[in-house]
Amino acid sequence: MSRNFASDNVSPASAAILAAVNEANADPVSSYGADPYTARLQAVVSTLFETEVAVFPVATGTAANALALSQIAPPYGAVYCYEASHIATDECAAPEFFTGGAKLIGLPAADGKLLPEALAASIALANDMGVHHAKPAAVSLTQATEWGTVYSIAQLAAIAAVAREQRMTVHMDGARFANALAHLRCSPAEATWKSGVDVLSLGATKNGALCAEAVVFFNPKLAADFERRRKRAGHLWSKLRFLSAQLLAYFEDDLWLRNARHANAMAAALAGGLRAVAGARLLHPVDANEVFVALPETVVAGLEQGGFGFYRWPLCESRDDVAIRLVTSYATRDEDVGDLLAAIGEFA
Amino acid sequence: MSRNFASDNVSPASAAILAAVNEANADPVSSYGADPYTARLQAVVSTLFETEVAVFPVATGTAANALALSQIAPPYGAVYCYEASHIATDECAAPEFFTGGAKLIGLPAADGKLLPEALAASIALANDMGVHHAKPAAVSLTQATEWGTVYSIAQLAAIAAVAREQRMTVHMDGARFANALAHLRCSPAEATWKSGVDVLSLGATKNGALCAEAVVFFNPKLAADFERRRKRAGHLWSKLRFLSAQLLAYFEDDLWLRNARHANAMAAALAGGLRAVAGARLLHPVDANEVFVALPETVVAGLEQGGFGFYRWPLCESRDDVAIRLVTSYATRDEDVGDLLAAIGEFA
Amino acid sequence: MSRNFASDNVSPASAAILAAVNEANADPVSSYGADPYTARLQAVVSTLFETEVAVFPVATGTAANALALSQIAPPYGAVYCYEASHIATDECAAPEFFTGGAKLIGLPAADGKLLPEALAASIALANDMGVHHAKPAAVSLTQATEWGTVYSIAQLAAIAAVAREQRMTVHMDGARFANALAHLRCSPAEATWKSGVDVLSLGATKNGALCAEAVVFFNPKLAADFERRRKRAGHLWSKLRFLSAQLLAYFEDDLWLRNARHANAMAAALAGGLRAVAGARLLHPVDANEVFVALPETVVAGLEQGGFGFYRWPLCESRDDVAIRLVTSYATRDEDVGDLLAAIGEFA
Amino acid sequence: MSRNFASDNVSPASAAILAAVNEANADPVSSYGADPYTARLQAVVSTLFETEVAVFPVATGTAANALALSQIAPPYGAVYCYEASHIATDECAAPEFFTGGAKLIGLPAADGKLLPEALAASIALANDMGVHHAKPAAVSLTQATEWGTVYSIAQLAAIAAVAREQRMTVHMDGARFANALAHLRCSPAEATWKSGVDVLSLGATKNGALCAEAVVFFNPKLAADFERRRKRAGHLWSKLRFLSAQLLAYFEDDLWLRNARHANAMAAALAGGLRAVAGARLLHPVDANEVFVALPETVVAGLEQGGFGFYRWPLCESRDDVAIRLVTSYATRDEDVGDLLAAIGEFA
Repeated sequence: MSRNFASDNVSPASAAILAAVNEANADPVSSYGADPYTARLQAVVSTLFETEVAVFPVATGTAANALALSQIAPPYGAVYCYEASHIATDECAAPEFFTGGAKLIGLPAADGKLLPEALAASIALANDMGVHHAKPAAVSLTQATEWGTVYSIAQLAAIAAVAREQRMTVHMDGARFANALAHLRCSPAEATWKSGVDVLSLGATKNGALCAEAVVFFNPKLAADFERRRKRAGHLWSKLRFLSAQLLAYFEDDLWLRNARHANAMAAALAGGLRAVAGARLLHPVDANEVFVALPETVVAGLEQGGFGFYRWPLCESRDDVAIRLVTSYATRDEDVGDLLAAIGEFA
Repeated sequence: MSRNFASDNVSPASAAILAAVNEANADPVSSYGADPYTARLQAVVSTLFETEVAVFPVATGTAANALALSQIAPPYGAVYCYEASHIATDECAAPEFFTGGAKLIGLPAADGKLLPEALAASIALANDMGVHHAKPAAVSLTQATEWGTVYSIAQLAAIAAVAREQRMTVHMDGARFANALAHLRCSPAEATWKSGVDVLSLGATKNGALCAEAVVFFNPKLAADFERRRKRAGHLWSKLRFLSAQLLAYFEDDLWLRNARHANAMAAALAGGLRAVAGARLLHPVDANEVFVALPETVVAGLEQGGFGFYRWPLCESRDDVAIRLVTSYATRDEDVGDLLAAIGEFA
Repeated sequence: MSRNFASDNVSPASAAILAAVNEANADPVSSYGADPYTARLQAVVSTLFETEVAVFPVATGTAANALALSQIAPPYGAVYCYEASHIATDECAAPEFFTGGAKLIGLPAADGKLLPEALAASIALANDMGVHHAKPAAVSLTQATEWGTVYSIAQLAAIAAVAREQRMTVHMDGARFANALAHLRCSPAEATWKSGVDVLSLGATKNGALCAEAVVFFNPKLAADFERRRKRAGHLWSKLRFLSAQLLAYFEDDLWLRNARHANAMAAALAGGLRAVAGARLLHPVDANEVFVALPETVVAGLEQGGFGFYRWPLCESRDDVAIRLVTSYATRDEDVGDLLAAIGEFA
Repeated sequence: MSRNFASDNVSPASAAILAAVNEANADPVSSYGADPYTARLQAVVSTLFETEVAVFPVATGTAANALALSQIAPPYGAVYCYEASHIATDECAAPEFFTGGAKLIGLPAADGKLLPEALAASIALANDMGVHHAKPAAVSLTQATEWGTVYSIAQLAAIAAVAREQRMTVHMDGARFANALAHLRCSPAEATWKSGVDVLSLGATKNGALCAEAVVFFNPKLAADFERRRKRAGHLWSKLRFLSAQLLAYFEDDLWLRNARHANAMAAALAGGLRAVAGARLLHPVDANEVFVALPETVVAGLEQGGFGFYRWPLCESRDDVAIRLVTSYATRDEDVGDLLAAIGEFA
């Protein structure tokens, strides 16, 4: 039984993914991506997204995001994003590094979702300032969001429409893309390029891989020279088969969706239980696998002493109760959630 | 049987390393390096090198080299290296990227080994030019070298002495450090910090890992803020245990040295066989696991048609025969070498 | 008569400064700063600030700011500043470029002045996030501020105290430093290093030079290698005497303060006149040489049609009236202000 | 009389250029290039080069070169140049900074001129290495060269042909372009775009300006967003008229060519005199305004003691005599040359 709800990345790897790594460890194969696993991945992801894509495996989400942004924003460009987005606050200025100094423009959001009007207004201001301002180049949105919510297809399209009108490119940070897709119950294509997304950081690590993310360009022309960017960033593995094999297993037999559905269901169960707790206040809708809840300090302290793992989260408004984040994963079990809810009930 | 001598990175992973990855896939653990594997690695490497080190696992050699250089050379600095070194020619300008634009100064070498006098002369020229020239900051040498030779301890110390006199830092690209160590038959400490090396890129991928290199600072003060550099480059894994576990297995029971000794022995056997071939000309001493040999075009073409994997290598002087590189690894078998020599004999 | 209140940089150069450039055009002198003008500048500025400084002339304020920040913030660092500060919004990501990707953290302010509590809270958040967040490295404040206000000595010291407690460095963007000093009526030393400022971008261009700013380090040790940063950014003039001569004339006979006092007086006169206009609303205190005023759209449109030069400024809150910025300079005359006020009176 | 032959940048400004600066110091004008001087410069340079160009004034040659290169080489690109070119050795890694880490590939040359075959071979090697090597992006050649020689039109075209075949862009470092043009006696168009040059750093500072260079794109489409690059590098002057006015005067009445012809004539006279000196050995043809001569140590020491200004230059081959560089300028007088030759004759 696990009491660790700190993040979905504390989980081990799915058995199927680990098995795939073991199976890939056979005879010598050509290095740097000239291997059959990587070739097959290209075909598999294209089929999955119903269009010819260019897909590049990398080991971390920070690399996927920052490389993707460096491809679509020049060094003198502006990338519009939620002011508390992962790329803006949790990646130690990786986007600035990879882009060569592009500027992230932090915008307000509702439940972590960018607002089309605020986005358009900020771009208009930049256009007014001309050469003095970084050039509006890209919009980056997170799906599922940092607050565990999921953009609807209409919401995605509205953001993309603003970008398209300005000839800007749309990036989706999909560290939890599978969780979003499981919530949306639509096709991967509808959730991305059919809604205006140009490039996707498709995460697997949080959802069952050892270390695997894929940068997916829905128009391969947009990926020109991307492999040199990956190489010079030290993200081209010599034994790339071990990355590609993880992703192949991730997509096989819908493992990614099965894992995500389970994680989402565990979060929903947790949220359901919390709604019945006096003094507990859910801070955002629970669409995916993250639960943000405000609890009395005594409860939070009790959980910490009880060995539960989670993060305290800064609240925008100062209040007497404490906000915490609880994250479920493919590996969370019913009894883990039950155990946590029981403890909360006890301390409340 | 394998006919692939293209590189040591075409090999799969050692069984012990793969087993370690499987074993690490247990319960949830804290992410981003706050796990017991990473903590133990710090202790193991310190013991191995007989001094308190700061060690940082990363997935690729390019990342290890470029991150290490970014730590010791400012953006306006100069890094002195062999003009045909891997960092200068094979990493798609990764050192320039990570350092923020530092300049690699390519120097001539003998069998891939920097010459102290040429190094000193180049630095003196820079000093004469003052502010107009990038500031001499670091020396980077490759051990084993790009030509399969190994610096002696005295040769290392002579280079380091030049650097020390100029208050410059010494980096060792040890993508094949184990192979060098197996050749030198000295302690890891003697091969590095006791000979003046400040920071080492210690490779494991070419010698049995799936994807693991370690940046080792022999003075932990030199590593200040290095973890932020790693993070912003996308090289801090969330599930870092899977990297650390590989390196733990690499050092356990001398696996790294056993693997390297075997690879070196296979190269020696190959070189020995080639010496008996009329028309074959070894281009450099064979100290480690790489053999550079000039052969008649007919032989080389015959090998290619026979399905052997290797690279043609540009010769400095134009000649009628063709230079090729043959690389052995921990996974090369006696019969692989015999098979190759037989084919060469047949075509010669 | 000039109707151009768009900026203080629309003004020509002071006669004394132009004369100094003409006088410097004598015999050949050594280039790249090894000239008597640059040597004398070092002495003059040290005397002026009552401490041994390291001073570096450059041609633009963007260069002065971005170079200064690159010296005090590492590529993985965070620079705290007002969210609408010039470095954050008007320099096309120059700070990100020069620092190699450091992150500007935009903070709220009151009348353009940073708030010590908000600064401390933002730094605390970064410290909590550790390696995932850019490292708190520097605070940059603008004096006079972007809203024409001036930090008091006590306000400066309060900001500097927060920085000092966190071992961070304090930069002052002094594009209008002379205007601030004229307002404060204190010594240059009190307005800077005695109040905790480590490095100053001291502007002259807006206040009478052709093209001259000085980066002033109050602790010369902090300036180590700065001249290489300047060189590699293309900001070391070969004929540096022509920059240094401008600055020498700027400080001679208190030209800088005389110019600034005049500009401030013109702004005060303008503000005074506006207070008497029905429907005009001053948006910030007028401490220096900028006036931000809200006026009815009909008035603003009338001024535009009347050939007056100024910028419309976005208001935080949407309102019916229009905010504009009016900037005076050393070259603004009484009749220019009178003319403008008369026109406003006419349209109001 | 001047004994300073250290560089053409030790000279003051031409009277006509200084006069133009004085004249530009009239009424307020719009800043950041929206002024009539800058508009006229665009027209003047287009006429001069017989094609619609995009021209951008900056204050230094390093800025002109590095900005131009950043426009034509991506961060993962390779710029081919002479191994001892100014951009490679004298600009403190400015090209690496501005491009975001592109790699300069140093090539051998004859009298400072790139050799088409060596260029083609180096590019072919890069193409063979694919993603591991920086992408061949641009060729940069210096005209007049660092050794005072001048590429013929045919030599230019041969280099450009190699570049064109590889879809690479050609940059010309024309710090001494006027001197080259005076030697070639062809039109500016023939010396540049008609011979395959895409972008020119056209220098004026060494040839009579205070501080002025122009980046000239012969296809304006190639200049897209260049003004943002200039801005974020701190090279967009607020009072840009003072730069543009210098360049207008530079081109007016053929001042640039008159100045250059004089400088070249002075160098020719110097070379002529040196040919008659026993023990003097001219090291390169004297096409422009630089003379490289080997002299006995006693002579060189005598000149130094006599107060003559010049640089000792490292010789490729070690010899007993000493190489020095003597540079003439528009301001060098007959008697300056006579004085120097007399002194050499005396010590020889």
